[in-house]
Amino acid sequence: MAKLTPRDKDYSQWYNELVVQADLAEHSDVRGCMVIKPHGYSIWENMKEALDKKFKATGHQNAYFPLFIPKSYLSKEAAHVEGFAKECAVVTHYRLRSTADGKGVEVDPDAKLEEELIVRPTSETIIWNTYRNWVKSYRDLPILVNQWANVVRWEMRTRLFLRTAEFLWQEGHTAHATKAEAITEAELMLDVYADFAEEFMAMPVIKGVKTETERFAGAVETYCIEALMQDGKALQAGTSHFLGQNFAKAFDVKFTGKDGKQEHVWATSWGVSTRLMGALIMTHSDDLGMVIPPKLATIQVVFVPIFKGEEQRLMLEERMNELAAQLRAKGVGVKVDADDSKKPGWKFAEYELKGIPLRIAIGPRDYENGTLEIARRDTQEKQTINQDELAEIVPSLLEEMQANLYNKAKAKLDASIVEVDSWDEFKVKIKEGGFISAYWDGTAETEKRIKEETKATIRCIPLENFEKKSEPGKCVFTGDSAKERVLFALAY
Amino acid sequence: MAKLTPRDKDYSQWYNELVVQADLAEHSDVRGCMVIKPHGYSIWENMKEALDKKFKATGHQNAYFPLFIPKSYLSKEAAHVEGFAKECAVVTHYRLRSTADGKGVEVDPDAKLEEELIVRPTSETIIWNTYRNWVKSYRDLPILVNQWANVVRWEMRTRLFLRTAEFLWQEGHTAHATKAEAITEAELMLDVYADFAEEFMAMPVIKGVKTETERFAGAVETYCIEALMQDGKALQAGTSHFLGQNFAKAFDVKFTGKDGKQEHVWATSWGVSTRLMGALIMTHSDDLGMVIPPKLATIQVVFVPIFKGEEQRLMLEERMNELAAQLRAKGVGVKVDADDSKKPGWKFAEYELKGIPLRIAIGPRDYENGTLEIARRDTQEKQTINQDELAEIVPSLLEEMQANLYNKAKAKLDASIVEVDSWDEFKVKIKEGGFISAYWDGTAETEKRIKEETKATIRCIPLENFEKKSEPGKCVFTGDSAKERVLFALAY
Repeated sequence: MAKLTPRDKDYSQWYNELVVQADLAEHSDVRGCMVIKPHGYSIWENMKEALDKKFKATGHQNAYFPLFIPKSYLSKEAAHVEGFAKECAVVTHYRLRSTADGKGVEVDPDAKLEEELIVRPTSETIIWNTYRNWVKSYRDLPILVNQWANVVRWEMRTRLFLRTAEFLWQEGHTAHATKAEAITEAELMLDVYADFAEEFMAMPVIKGVKTETERFAGAVETYCIEALMQDGKALQAGTSHFLGQNFAKAFDVKFTGKDGKQEHVWATSWGVSTRLMGALIMTHSDDLGMVIPPKLATIQVVFVPIFKGEEQRLMLEERMNELAAQLRAKGVGVKVDADDSKKPGWKFAEYELKGIPLRIAIGPRDYENGTLEIARRDTQEKQTINQDELAEIVPSLLEEMQANLYNKAKAKLDASIVEVDSWDEFKVKIKEGGFISAYWDGTAETEKRIKEETKATIRCIPLENFEKKSEPGKCVFTGDSAKERVLFALAY
Repeated sequence: MAKLTPRDKDYSQWYNELVVQADLAEHSDVRGCMVIKPHGYSIWENMKEALDKKFKATGHQNAYFPLFIPKSYLSKEAAHVEGFAKECAVVTHYRLRSTADGKGVEVDPDAKLEEELIVRPTSETIIWNTYRNWVKSYRDLPILVNQWANVVRWEMRTRLFLRTAEFLWQEGHTAHATKAEAITEAELMLDVYADFAEEFMAMPVIKGVKTETERFAGAVETYCIEALMQDGKALQAGTSHFLGQNFAKAFDVKFTGKDGKQEHVWATSWGVSTRLMGALIMTHSDDLGMVIPPKLATIQVVFVPIFKGEEQRLMLEERMNELAAQLRAKGVGVKVDADDSKKPGWKFAEYELKGIPLRIAIGPRDYENGTLEIARRDTQEKQTINQDELAEIVPSLLEEMQANLYNKAKAKLDASIVEVDSWDEFKVKIKEGGFISAYWDGTAETEKRIKEETKATIRCIPLENFEKKSEPGKCVFTGDSAKERVLFALAY
């Protein structure tokens, strides 16, 4: 097995190698589309399951809407078409026919669609076109619906998980009778995302609001969670949009209120995607490979026997199976790897690469002594314990590891946020990575010029500054008066 | 609420009305694509979860492959292109641009793809193209992978769930070192499907093998499960294909065996889709609406209070919430509907239409007496019981209902299979519905002529006849010698 390029040598290269070598995903022959391999998909499945539970616990239901969107729908909401309609997969025909030589197939020119269909880049338009028929009265509200789906945005430069033409995601689309209720919903889902990121991904996030420039196409307000990657860059991990009445007006969705009056419906949408896999990797993993937080690992513990000959192998396998059964009874995900075609050292490296939280090694002497060696993926610490303690120790070690990953990442995030009040300092600090908390005059022009000079973008107006309206100050770039501090960073 | 057309008046109309009125699904504005509404999707989710557990228990893992397939891939397997390449969604461009008037968007002619992409109608080609890089040695086998995905087959005449342009499904794609192992896998997955259908859907099925005419494009053998709908028509509920080395040869997937020799890999694929929703509806539902087998119902019990005035409503709501908590503690899915904007009679009809297994009504007298009325959706039976018995009675009632649905359907299926040995009788019996067990001479020509004369198709060679090679006889149509009896039916 080839070693990964160390992170401090080339972070980007390390990431690309890790994703492929740890069997998380690979590029397909279809430009920009990835194959999510079983190991990578199992992590995504665990994320899905945890998120889905949270969505349902907050009253949402799942549904499914069409993959295709008629071209004309995209132009119904003016800002939306501006932000989305450009790069997308366009279906123009619905039939192939055999070529004249009988050896291949070609597009049948007679099977041209009257109106082209777009493979959904996001589903606001098709969903609001559907909601029109679902909503008549205030009694039909709220609609609290989520969809797990694939979407396509034609990207020219792609990176596994971070930016691919096709990706998997969930998109929630809710409809409400009042503005206040819709804003509460958008904020609630931001909290759900932040809780999920911290509790399951062990990834601390900053909650905030996007500037107008960075806002979702068609939104009145975009809430977001921002995370810090190991290389000091920020990554937008999830967004929740308050859409006002924009889509309801574009698709004529009205309801009759208790007072008998007709009004347009208020909307939100919110989503996270397989991009979270990239965030997970770049939050915890190291030069040996992936590190999976225990709560997202399907296999949380792997047993590796150290043996000579078939007799020892079978003897150890039997003992490992007994111990594995004890762990499974406690809800722990376990694999016993008694494969004799690979050496223990190879297996150790393989499971480190794949990020399995705990590795247990047992040799013939352990068998006799009733001991085993347990190694933690995050700290690389090993300890020898008694086999009869295992079922007690493993659950608490997993919890400890989950907490340790979060605490380490949280300390790093907190330390990375620096307040900067001069432009000279800004230019130096931004190169060091992390978030810069600085005053901004609130204009798109300043935002653009800062980006041109430093590549830094405003990741968000942190919710605490946004809500509390922190003390006003002077813009770090123009010196003009500024309402609050915002967070700048280089970003994925 | 409009009543459904009775089944004996117009079965097809009844089905169409039920799907929409019970909030299971509806047609979208995109031709042939459906919207699966939350209530319908919750049933599909429960099916998915049960199937997914069975897949994992038999050693399979999930993964995800691209939505798009390069056009040229489809023609690599000759039989496959013949069967699949015709009606499908073709992506030809990857960008839109604003129209000259700035009001709409149009396809950008400069953004034409060099090779068109097909929205997957099934994924054998893209997956076997990927497996080529995954398989080097016998140690890399078997690959036991499944994918949950959307697929598109351009259908001209569509019906909700039964035949739609886009549908949801799972497709398993496995790779093996030997022919025997692949056949065992294909048969195992057929058993998994049959067990699932009977255990969860309460839908008995016949396991069999398709004739060459009805075989999957590219398969050596297609195994299937066939179910009987209430109107006497058959419905193919799932298929499992032994693909031989066809796709391995088309995509050059070879492995080095223990003996050091190179050989092509052996394959299977197997799938079930949202079509199962149609099968579920047409197996159990009645003129009042949907009947959901308890194991697939998210809400298994609904509480409806019968009250006058807010004081009674609150009093009953409190009691219902206590009882609901007792049921939830036993793992029962419960809804308490204390909405005061709808009358109890309306709610009764609504929950019958939606197929909720058990309905519990409580009035002020019940409150005082400590009683309640419980109604079963399948038999319409009502009984009054003591509230303190509820947590005991509900789980057993749900089990009884699940068993009753299966037993009723099984009796109907068994009674529907008739042995027919003359062509005159065949022509009469086929119109009465159900399966005809008759000798067939094994030729595609006879199969075709029988279909032309009666519209009946050979649903399968039942596995017991196929394996046991039942006593030979004379073909019901030609009188020529025939190896075994096969099952004919009119089908969806």
